[in-house]
Amino acid sequence: MKYKKYKKGFTHSYAIGSFTVLNLINAKAESVTAVYCHEKLSLSSLEKIEDACHKNEISLFKGANKEVERVRNKDRELVFAVFEKYESAIDPTKNHIVLDKPSDMGNLGSILRTALGFGYSEIAIIGNSADLFNPKTIRSSMGAMFDLNIELFSSYEEYEKRISNIEREVYPFMLDGEMELREIKKNDKLPVSLVFGNESAGLDDFYKNVGKTVYIEHSDKIDSLNLGIAASIAMYNFSS
Amino acid sequence: MKYKKYKKGFTHSYAIGSFTVLNLINAKAESVTAVYCHEKLSLSSLEKIEDACHKNEISLFKGANKEVERVRNKDRELVFAVFEKYESAIDPTKNHIVLDKPSDMGNLGSILRTALGFGYSEIAIIGNSADLFNPKTIRSSMGAMFDLNIELFSSYEEYEKRISNIEREVYPFMLDGEMELREIKKNDKLPVSLVFGNESAGLDDFYKNVGKTVYIEHSDKIDSLNLGIAASIAMYNFSS
Repeated sequence: MKYKKYKKGFTHSYAIGSFTVLNLINAKAESVTAVYCHEKLSLSSLEKIEDACHKNEISLFKGANKEVERVRNKDRELVFAVFEKYESAIDPTKNHIVLDKPSDMGNLGSILRTALGFGYSEIAIIGNSADLFNPKTIRSSMGAMFDLNIELFSSYEEYEKRISNIEREVYPFMLDGEMELREIKKNDKLPVSLVFGNESAGLDDFYKNVGKTVYIEHSDKIDSLNLGIAASIAMYNFSS
Repeated sequence: MKYKKYKKGFTHSYAIGSFTVLNLINAKAESVTAVYCHEKLSLSSLEKIEDACHKNEISLFKGANKEVERVRNKDRELVFAVFEKYESAIDPTKNHIVLDKPSDMGNLGSILRTALGFGYSEIAIIGNSADLFNPKTIRSSMGAMFDLNIELFSSYEEYEKRISNIEREVYPFMLDGEMELREIKKNDKLPVSLVFGNESAGLDDFYKNVGKTVYIEHSDKIDSLNLGIAASIAMYNFSS
């Protein structure tokens, strides 16, 4: 099979780079079709990948220089795995990170990586978003996305239906929120949803009615914090 | 004068995009040589820029399509300002953000933007770093860098000499730090230095002797937090 550079319409995608490939195999071996290595891949990386492929009965093609060069985005990328896109569902009893129309693949990946680091395993994405399965998003998450349950919803209402049976606290983050992040008194018995808008528009006023709105205090010398930064500060401060 | 796409060796650089150009003029008008606008620039942006140039007696070239197209990195960039690179010095009595060999322009710019947002006006950069004056760093800071005092030091020892007369608390952030960020009891009377290593290597063991080392707790499912994320969480939690 001849693989081409990734396009959104594909039913498969690629994890590129050893670290990301290994994370994919560890988390979602059943979705992996094959792994291709360039002859320039270091021996230590090759050994780890051979071992993971062997354990999971995944086909490994070594010295597949042409394939790697056709699929990769950067010259230093020396290995990729092909996998079938999959769906996952969030657990309604756990803490959620809710992202409304995140539009930047780098930000999205970085938020996924931080979420995994701070113990948030369930991610809800509302509306049109950056392509979760684009190799750039995957790479920016350092493969963290394979360890998360990420569910796409066409609207917040659809997400609400999914969580309606279980009591939870919902915190939309807005520049004109009611409370500063540090003032929040969490109820440790209830799961939380931390809700973030997209890079340019933030959350619209509709979100003022879905929970207790929160802001992160900063000087007026900047317009706003970067989305990935704001979400990370929120996740850290909610995960104590 | 015919300006070429930016190179590190230039004695001048460019602020590209209206928001960044306006921040440059507000903060460092004396360094600005001229401003060039593409004819596609929106009238509302053009008016703000005309006004800022007029007040500060800066030459403005309208309809300078060729100049803009030669200098910009992205097609949607429609205005740029030329400015002479300048030096600034940190104030040894204030809080400092200390960055050891930051290597990624996007991370560096994003840290500068967050620093300005959380009231850290003094930035020390130690050793070889990503080019502060590259238009990509400037853009990623959204022009925040023009409002900061940023001083370059060849080594930490050189930085220490600069601050030696004033008592302060130094907190190097390291994966194997002694205390978790939330445990730190700040002495509100002393200024702090928050010290961060670079993207791939972090801080080396030398830094264990310069202050109280700190870590940010995260699960072992990720290798480390992104540098910009870690620095932002630290700045927020130290700025209460």
